[in-house]
Amino acid sequence: MSGQPPTLGVGMVGFGFIGKVHAHAYRSQRLFYDPPPALPRLVGVCTTRPETAQRAAEQGEFAFGTDRFEDLLARDDIDIIDVATPNPLHHDQVIAALEAGKHVYCDKPLAVTLDEARAIVAAAQARPELTHGMALHCRFVPATMRARQLIDEDRLGRVFHFRAAYLHSGYEDPQRPISWRLSKEAGGGVLSDLGSHIIDLMAWLLGPFGTVQASAETFIRERPVAAGSGERATVEVEDYVAFQAWMQSGALGFVEASRFATGLQDQLEFSIFGEQGALRFDLMNPNWLLFFDAQDKGGDLGGERGFKMIECVQRYPKPSALPSPKLGIGWVRYHIHAIHDLLAAVAEGRLGGATLFDGARVQAVDDAVRKSMQTGSQVAVPDI
Amino acid sequence: MSGQPPTLGVGMVGFGFIGKVHAHAYRSQRLFYDPPPALPRLVGVCTTRPETAQRAAEQGEFAFGTDRFEDLLARDDIDIIDVATPNPLHHDQVIAALEAGKHVYCDKPLAVTLDEARAIVAAAQARPELTHGMALHCRFVPATMRARQLIDEDRLGRVFHFRAAYLHSGYEDPQRPISWRLSKEAGGGVLSDLGSHIIDLMAWLLGPFGTVQASAETFIRERPVAAGSGERATVEVEDYVAFQAWMQSGALGFVEASRFATGLQDQLEFSIFGEQGALRFDLMNPNWLLFFDAQDKGGDLGGERGFKMIECVQRYPKPSALPSPKLGIGWVRYHIHAIHDLLAAVAEGRLGGATLFDGARVQAVDDAVRKSMQTGSQVAVPDI
Amino acid sequence: MSGQPPTLGVGMVGFGFIGKVHAHAYRSQRLFYDPPPALPRLVGVCTTRPETAQRAAEQGEFAFGTDRFEDLLARDDIDIIDVATPNPLHHDQVIAALEAGKHVYCDKPLAVTLDEARAIVAAAQARPELTHGMALHCRFVPATMRARQLIDEDRLGRVFHFRAAYLHSGYEDPQRPISWRLSKEAGGGVLSDLGSHIIDLMAWLLGPFGTVQASAETFIRERPVAAGSGERATVEVEDYVAFQAWMQSGALGFVEASRFATGLQDQLEFSIFGEQGALRFDLMNPNWLLFFDAQDKGGDLGGERGFKMIECVQRYPKPSALPSPKLGIGWVRYHIHAIHDLLAAVAEGRLGGATLFDGARVQAVDDAVRKSMQTGSQVAVPDI
Amino acid sequence: MSGQPPTLGVGMVGFGFIGKVHAHAYRSQRLFYDPPPALPRLVGVCTTRPETAQRAAEQGEFAFGTDRFEDLLARDDIDIIDVATPNPLHHDQVIAALEAGKHVYCDKPLAVTLDEARAIVAAAQARPELTHGMALHCRFVPATMRARQLIDEDRLGRVFHFRAAYLHSGYEDPQRPISWRLSKEAGGGVLSDLGSHIIDLMAWLLGPFGTVQASAETFIRERPVAAGSGERATVEVEDYVAFQAWMQSGALGFVEASRFATGLQDQLEFSIFGEQGALRFDLMNPNWLLFFDAQDKGGDLGGERGFKMIECVQRYPKPSALPSPKLGIGWVRYHIHAIHDLLAAVAEGRLGGATLFDGARVQAVDDAVRKSMQTGSQVAVPDI
Repeated sequence: MSGQPPTLGVGMVGFGFIGKVHAHAYRSQRLFYDPPPALPRLVGVCTTRPETAQRAAEQGEFAFGTDRFEDLLARDDIDIIDVATPNPLHHDQVIAALEAGKHVYCDKPLAVTLDEARAIVAAAQARPELTHGMALHCRFVPATMRARQLIDEDRLGRVFHFRAAYLHSGYEDPQRPISWRLSKEAGGGVLSDLGSHIIDLMAWLLGPFGTVQASAETFIRERPVAAGSGERATVEVEDYVAFQAWMQSGALGFVEASRFATGLQDQLEFSIFGEQGALRFDLMNPNWLLFFDAQDKGGDLGGERGFKMIECVQRYPKPSALPSPKLGIGWVRYHIHAIHDLLAAVAEGRLGGATLFDGARVQAVDDAVRKSMQTGSQVAVPDI
Repeated sequence: MSGQPPTLGVGMVGFGFIGKVHAHAYRSQRLFYDPPPALPRLVGVCTTRPETAQRAAEQGEFAFGTDRFEDLLARDDIDIIDVATPNPLHHDQVIAALEAGKHVYCDKPLAVTLDEARAIVAAAQARPELTHGMALHCRFVPATMRARQLIDEDRLGRVFHFRAAYLHSGYEDPQRPISWRLSKEAGGGVLSDLGSHIIDLMAWLLGPFGTVQASAETFIRERPVAAGSGERATVEVEDYVAFQAWMQSGALGFVEASRFATGLQDQLEFSIFGEQGALRFDLMNPNWLLFFDAQDKGGDLGGERGFKMIECVQRYPKPSALPSPKLGIGWVRYHIHAIHDLLAAVAEGRLGGATLFDGARVQAVDDAVRKSMQTGSQVAVPDI
Repeated sequence: MSGQPPTLGVGMVGFGFIGKVHAHAYRSQRLFYDPPPALPRLVGVCTTRPETAQRAAEQGEFAFGTDRFEDLLARDDIDIIDVATPNPLHHDQVIAALEAGKHVYCDKPLAVTLDEARAIVAAAQARPELTHGMALHCRFVPATMRARQLIDEDRLGRVFHFRAAYLHSGYEDPQRPISWRLSKEAGGGVLSDLGSHIIDLMAWLLGPFGTVQASAETFIRERPVAAGSGERATVEVEDYVAFQAWMQSGALGFVEASRFATGLQDQLEFSIFGEQGALRFDLMNPNWLLFFDAQDKGGDLGGERGFKMIECVQRYPKPSALPSPKLGIGWVRYHIHAIHDLLAAVAEGRLGGATLFDGARVQAVDDAVRKSMQTGSQVAVPDI
Repeated sequence: MSGQPPTLGVGMVGFGFIGKVHAHAYRSQRLFYDPPPALPRLVGVCTTRPETAQRAAEQGEFAFGTDRFEDLLARDDIDIIDVATPNPLHHDQVIAALEAGKHVYCDKPLAVTLDEARAIVAAAQARPELTHGMALHCRFVPATMRARQLIDEDRLGRVFHFRAAYLHSGYEDPQRPISWRLSKEAGGGVLSDLGSHIIDLMAWLLGPFGTVQASAETFIRERPVAAGSGERATVEVEDYVAFQAWMQSGALGFVEASRFATGLQDQLEFSIFGEQGALRFDLMNPNWLLFFDAQDKGGDLGGERGFKMIECVQRYPKPSALPSPKLGIGWVRYHIHAIHDLLAAVAEGRLGGATLFDGARVQAVDDAVRKSMQTGSQVAVPDI
């Protein structure tokens, strides 16, 4: 790349936890990539009220804050709309942004229903000149990127079966009060919240899901309306979901997502078993990808067969420049690389490494799993 | 216990891999337990041909070898019949042994069909004065024994969900020839071979299975009849089975057994998540049981919450005397303790720690899983 | 804290790897802490040449760049001088900054000689109203902070012995060319580069070092002057250093630092064994601190004795707000918290959590180790 | 080998913990190896009193028990004397056995002093037709055997430095009473007890020790004479020893042995760093040997560099037949293979895989470490 990288104006809608993470990731680009593919400029942030918008602008160092989404869409100096709102709002905002000619970066899950997701897909297809990306940060971990490389190089051969899980805790206490996240308004329970990550990751690594058969449970069906309150409200979403999957490739799999995995934190893990090799990964030990190469042949003492702990640390491809590729990695870094990919995609006029289409594919699996949760029978994953 | 421990004569039928393991375990009792609950005497061994019987007697240091099972049953100095034959033979031999008034120790799985298992149960119930045990050695690992203790002490509280798997490799190569184990005569595929262990272990820890929904796969459906041969034979049993389980307690679970888990060896593992705590275990790291105590309360820096790696090593209760309870443990040791339990049960006139009834219960789960594998629908586990 | 946090102007000298890390950490404060103790403003950056200074200013988003250090000292709107230059320059720059009335944050190691370090200490003592901090980021890892808490709560009791190591690789290839880091100008070899971290960490956890006895080695004594060159230059610093330590508390220890630990990356680890408990940590698995509580009493099966993997993840005390305390941590995050501590210290008019005095204490140990490396005999650590 | 394996008569002196382990290992040979290199027959056992001898004979299934060592030496049907007594007795018994024309298997450490060890060496050299072995079981672990293979194949290249430790706990409580093991009569403290294993292992892997520099500590210098007693006795041996080592090959190392490593059990571990590769091992995770191959070259994402967890489980070379080479291993198994090696050596008329000479070499290192512990200076390891 010759000359100065382009400047790209960013408008963000929503400034909760994930909005702050995105803002931090934009701000980190200049230092983490050398040269950066583009220089992001945080132009405007939109929240629900003028006061919070003002505070968001200060905290995130945006040029201005507003409570009117149209203010972002109207600005010529905003190239990218970063949708960091609760998922029930994504459909309208993403489509409006696309129609206003903005590139889009959307938090996961893409939408609440498959119909919404399809409408977004149609809007994106209507504007092929626009870049879009999804905040599926698990694709941007050095170890998962390396897993993808190994699969692309056919190092696993035919995949027989796999296991994948995203296990969290925090809801085991029946006295924990009800919250928005446990209501229908959240647009789904643990399946859309955590399941979307692991579904996307496995589809990215192993190709599309074919058929699923699911079960789910709401372990605690009523909770206090507030801490210590005797009044109770109904939990409207699932706490736990598990499903068997038949991939289009013929591989069998089992996928789990839980908010009731007592003692675990952010435990995203997978094992993939193939004819030529196997892969294992655990996001809480993200510095290594485990790879077994079935080509290794053993001797009397077993030769050198075994899982290799491939060192992944901060090993991103150039222009990654910070931190050193020898240092232990963590959660923030994945988002910085996800935003890097978005900016590079916009600069290069290509789609992002994870797109609205990918988000819609996750939604289609979500839709099938949700139907199977209710009927107990096998459900084919629909097209998007 | 005062005075000399009783001597118990053992007759063994079958002397393949597992027969040798049992023989070694009997021979190890005098040194591993002080005092031993009983002194086993290896009286006779029965195999299919006189020559192999003679060799088995020498190798196992039995007083005699025979190719006639009746020779074992007829002997007054044989108290225990150890059934170490392929599972299709268990039904006739176990019932004959019980009818001959012998205590019985039977290798897993108990039988080929639930009907067979029920007939064995009836035979055992008809002779309540006889002790019987099953070679379900996973119950005799210090870490699983400790897991059971913690559950009995109600340290987990209500169990929400669990995962359990028994993963092996070795069959991934399509050129590996067909073998008896892959034919219908083996009495089942990976479900009865490996699945029986993990089914029993979870039932022992968490109570009876209620309903199951399964899928299975034979990944390689034809294999050479011999190494290098162009002639092919059909694989008649499943290579992989996975099922969701609804326990009678209300807990949800997912259970897997595989011979196609490339790169893994004897990987029996489980995670159990409860309201008050969680447990994790992996037979390849058998020196530790991981226990999370949800009673631990965190402070600013997270207090002291976390999985404790409970040291299990060779920590068997007295009269265990060898090796030192401070040394790393291994597979052979579990069988030595399983046989110890059998001998103590006979000496004390009680049932073994794992019984023919337990074996039949596994068979009932096996039966339901097998039905569900064919229909894809939920199947209730029948009574035994 | 009421009202708006104060704004603190930062001037940075040096903008290599560690300068960029510091710049990123300053920029991350607004989002990572809520409220932040102070709002850093990146005012000026000084490098050796006007062009690089200009580029540093753009990359780090400083208001200006300069090649004259005096330009930073002269500015009223610069409150803090961040010294991110090679260590031979620290002495003059730190003293000049203190004399100009600036708070100081200095990269490790503090200096090249103990005399230099003592002069810096004197300068700092002469200006007690100024805050100073050292970039000893290992003190700002949740797991090490938790280790310190447990020690402060006397959970280890009398410490018997410990092991600590900082192991890196990268220099094993004899064809790797010579570089500035391998010359005397670097101000020391692996002892000052990596050893300074582990020395500081152990002094912070266990109190001052008393006596040391060291050995060191330069495994490859000559290297090509450039890749592929036949000309060779002498390596002037040590590749590996190890020393036994007698702490003032009576504890014995062994400390190692290596650039030749083939296959390892950033492997800082320690084990501390005390009468009441033990601690183990490994920076490549930073989400957990292992703690053994000797108060746990065992029963027949060994009770619940064992190392607890205390979950540390991103568990920083408030006002830490980003990322969520449940997400896996990484190297960048420690520096963000180190800078947070600096800003809080300045805002509160106290010394930083790691000070120039701490840096000088490391230098005193370094000095004693270096003498012992040459004589092979025990050397008492001098006062600072 | 054609025909029937020879029968070898065994006489054992001493029947404490390690004697029982050896007896069990002899008894396991027929089943664990097919064909076994020789059939051991347990002829006689000698202890200090007739009653204990009688009980030992029953427990170990020896043909007779005696309190007169001469009774063993006089028997023609005893080929091997297994010396399982406390080390102060080894010198006289080993020499007497050799002079009586018996093959010898001796528990470690070989002796109390280097002079004693040299006398044993002379006696062994005087009878070159006799086989001798040492119970250095760490040489007979599949993972350490594999480590040796990799080193023999020059997969590490020049070794730069290594770390090795044998860490135990159990003596941290000052109220634990004095015992024989803590007196001078034991013939040494933790250095001879645990240190002998790790010294031998590193010499076996890396060649002879050159020079050492040691420190040691007796952390608790007085203990009650009995539980609850107010009377105190002096601890006469070291609790902890650590030494730096310069190997004859030029490699630097650090070796530790401790009985005060709170929370650890049988933690024998090593890391070896070489120009072409590195090895790591931990006896508490004995199923794997970690190997880093520096020949692996990395790409953008770090290629496939990383430690491979070489699966070691029960992978012994043929004629090993039990248990299956796919099952997790444990401590007892190492001793079974050590005795196997002894029997094969006798049958083949060769020295054992670990000999009295090896035992004497450990004694020479022990001697040098002990001298350095007192003077603090470097001491060259003497010849044997």
